[in-house]
Amino acid sequence: MNLTITDVRLTPILVADPPLLNTQGVHQPYTPRLIVEVVTADGITGVGETYGDAKYLELARPFAERLKGRQVSDLNGLFTVADQVAVDASRVENAVDVGGLRGVQTADKLRLSVLSGFEVACLDALGKALGLPVHALLGGKVRDAVEYSAYLFYKWAGHPEGVPAEKDDWGAALDPAGVVEQARRFTERYGFTSFKLKGGVFPPDEEIAAIKALAEAFPGHPLRLDPNGAWSVETSVKVARELGGVLEYLEDPALGTPAMAEVARRTGVPLATNMCVTTFAEIKEAFTRGAVQVVLSDHHYWGGLRNTQQLAAVCRTFGVGVSMHSNTHLGISLAAMTHVAATVPNLHHACDSHYPWQSEDVLTERLAFEGGRVAVSDAPGLGVELDHERLAALHQRWLDDDGTLRDRDDAAAMRVADPEWVTPAMPRW
Amino acid sequence: MNLTITDVRLTPILVADPPLLNTQGVHQPYTPRLIVEVVTADGITGVGETYGDAKYLELARPFAERLKGRQVSDLNGLFTVADQVAVDASRVENAVDVGGLRGVQTADKLRLSVLSGFEVACLDALGKALGLPVHALLGGKVRDAVEYSAYLFYKWAGHPEGVPAEKDDWGAALDPAGVVEQARRFTERYGFTSFKLKGGVFPPDEEIAAIKALAEAFPGHPLRLDPNGAWSVETSVKVARELGGVLEYLEDPALGTPAMAEVARRTGVPLATNMCVTTFAEIKEAFTRGAVQVVLSDHHYWGGLRNTQQLAAVCRTFGVGVSMHSNTHLGISLAAMTHVAATVPNLHHACDSHYPWQSEDVLTERLAFEGGRVAVSDAPGLGVELDHERLAALHQRWLDDDGTLRDRDDAAAMRVADPEWVTPAMPRW
Repeated sequence: MNLTITDVRLTPILVADPPLLNTQGVHQPYTPRLIVEVVTADGITGVGETYGDAKYLELARPFAERLKGRQVSDLNGLFTVADQVAVDASRVENAVDVGGLRGVQTADKLRLSVLSGFEVACLDALGKALGLPVHALLGGKVRDAVEYSAYLFYKWAGHPEGVPAEKDDWGAALDPAGVVEQARRFTERYGFTSFKLKGGVFPPDEEIAAIKALAEAFPGHPLRLDPNGAWSVETSVKVARELGGVLEYLEDPALGTPAMAEVARRTGVPLATNMCVTTFAEIKEAFTRGAVQVVLSDHHYWGGLRNTQQLAAVCRTFGVGVSMHSNTHLGISLAAMTHVAATVPNLHHACDSHYPWQSEDVLTERLAFEGGRVAVSDAPGLGVELDHERLAALHQRWLDDDGTLRDRDDAAAMRVADPEWVTPAMPRW
Repeated sequence: MNLTITDVRLTPILVADPPLLNTQGVHQPYTPRLIVEVVTADGITGVGETYGDAKYLELARPFAERLKGRQVSDLNGLFTVADQVAVDASRVENAVDVGGLRGVQTADKLRLSVLSGFEVACLDALGKALGLPVHALLGGKVRDAVEYSAYLFYKWAGHPEGVPAEKDDWGAALDPAGVVEQARRFTERYGFTSFKLKGGVFPPDEEIAAIKALAEAFPGHPLRLDPNGAWSVETSVKVARELGGVLEYLEDPALGTPAMAEVARRTGVPLATNMCVTTFAEIKEAFTRGAVQVVLSDHHYWGGLRNTQQLAAVCRTFGVGVSMHSNTHLGISLAAMTHVAATVPNLHHACDSHYPWQSEDVLTERLAFEGGRVAVSDAPGLGVELDHERLAALHQRWLDDDGTLRDRDDAAAMRVADPEWVTPAMPRW
């Protein structure tokens, strides 16, 4: 058995994305992702997936070069490699970042996001080489299926006219009735029993009404609202008081640890975050101040599956809950999320996933939700297989793009429909 | 490859221990350890080691039964098993525990101590089955050798006359000159460059003098003093002020988080602990109050090598240092400590180990210190081999014992020499 990495392939792609609304704008019709393949001396290929925007790609290329000759089992060594790869600071400070929807931007976080794609690919290759599923490489599953929540979005029926885009059959959702209808379809198609609404799109009263409508339509089901920090402390407190009785948690109502801590203190409503705490460096202050009650981990920017386990251990130690955040992603990342989630004992909330919104994938077989759950694969590695034809087609779309879609920019996408749109100053309300 | 556990062997032994002094008494001439062997369906055997006192043994037996049929790769599942094994509460509350030298006693900690022996054995078996060293199963080494410190003890030349015991050639060390002489021999034999003195034996002024003598004999070398919580806050503050300039850290000067926090606050001298923080449950308060600056992990009572990595991650997140504690142990545990220590990036202090004091082992080949370091083995598993004859001989000693040595009791051992000895009330000074 030779676990030496002999080749690393990077394939940037553009994948279809519906017109989902958030406080910064709307999803582009196509969004960039990066597919990573790590090949060993024995000819085993492991796959990974991470963000595909230009700043990630630029870092991934020299990172990939440094991986050749290393062992796929040397996962701790990936952090050493990450430290050796220079990050152009201007890329961090001035790059488009979907309006901060992924939390603070730092060079380290950029490195970890790139690292995560390689870590997952190494784990996949290692698992295939050893005949073990990735969850076994992470200490073994403690559950056989991982529960996900329905990720509800305000959305248009389609992208603006004249813009090249794939069609979707979800229809529009722009008011409480539309949101409830979308939730019904999610439960019918996938069996989800938890619901998260991406908020920060309409004035708070409209979103309060949508959550109340969901609570009435799905009594007793866990509900969440996530305005991505679009509210002031006063607005957050008001919404928390109105919805405290029906929310499982309120996600990132306001920006930053001091604001979150004040909302938590004044309302007692559990606050979740994937914006206030997105790096290990942010934990100490946030936990000490009681600013967050649930951390929504994202293995992409936390630096991989093993770092996700460490984050879960830190949360458990401090009595803070843990669940999972999701950006637009494909099946490779869903498989990775499922493997690591299966190993985290203190996972007491359904995870988020955009996957149902993605009509396109690079796998020969899509992952399936049954009863809102994804079964944990016991096949070697991640248990997924790359469809090279699909990958090539989505890469061709990336090659054909004139550059306008290669960096996700929700505000720019919104300006196609509304030329007057400017990225809102926070807090919006 | 069949990773199913088909057999688990438990072998309690008694191993020779020199007359090392601490604040509770003196080490027994023989101390109990438990050797664990886990056998897979393919006939691969993994070895582990943990405490061997009766309360550990009683828990290990039903634990071992439950392991049969499980996979050696199912390391997270060990915690599920641990939760299923009942602990007799009276065993925890009333059992002899070397006067609390291992910190708080709880049923969970007892379970984790037993679990650690099985976890190491499973990792050893898994590594052998996969052809990978244990460090690779833990994500890969970030260093090729692990540094240990010389563990200096006040000691008698021999155990009390008339008591069956092995002899040692270290001689007595009962004053500063004796401590310095012992340190010299440690450096000559093993190349150690850091020194830890087990204190709490003599009045603080004598131990201050010993540390000052070490500082003079070994200028610039890291020095530590560990009275096992024998001092009041006032005494701790006094010693810290006298030795602050020469100590790398002061270990457990006083008992409990409030006392440690006060000493830390008043002196600014870094405090290390293996008594104040010995479980994940104790971390939040201690870290929040700044009571400890270095946690001395012990994979036995923290629940294994993977939990040790999680502890290191928690410490790193909170800016707290990490190193390793040691009780009397043999080569299996030293190998396990070395593998996990090799994977912890934030290990900035030499680890403790009693191993040089142990003239007996159950391995075919002893582990070696060179330049104060143990090389990290790249052989499959732990890289050690059990000597079944030696194991049988040390087990026979355990069988032959009438029960007086099967529970380590340093106060009882002291009473053999000094019938008037009573376990000192803390703080002693």
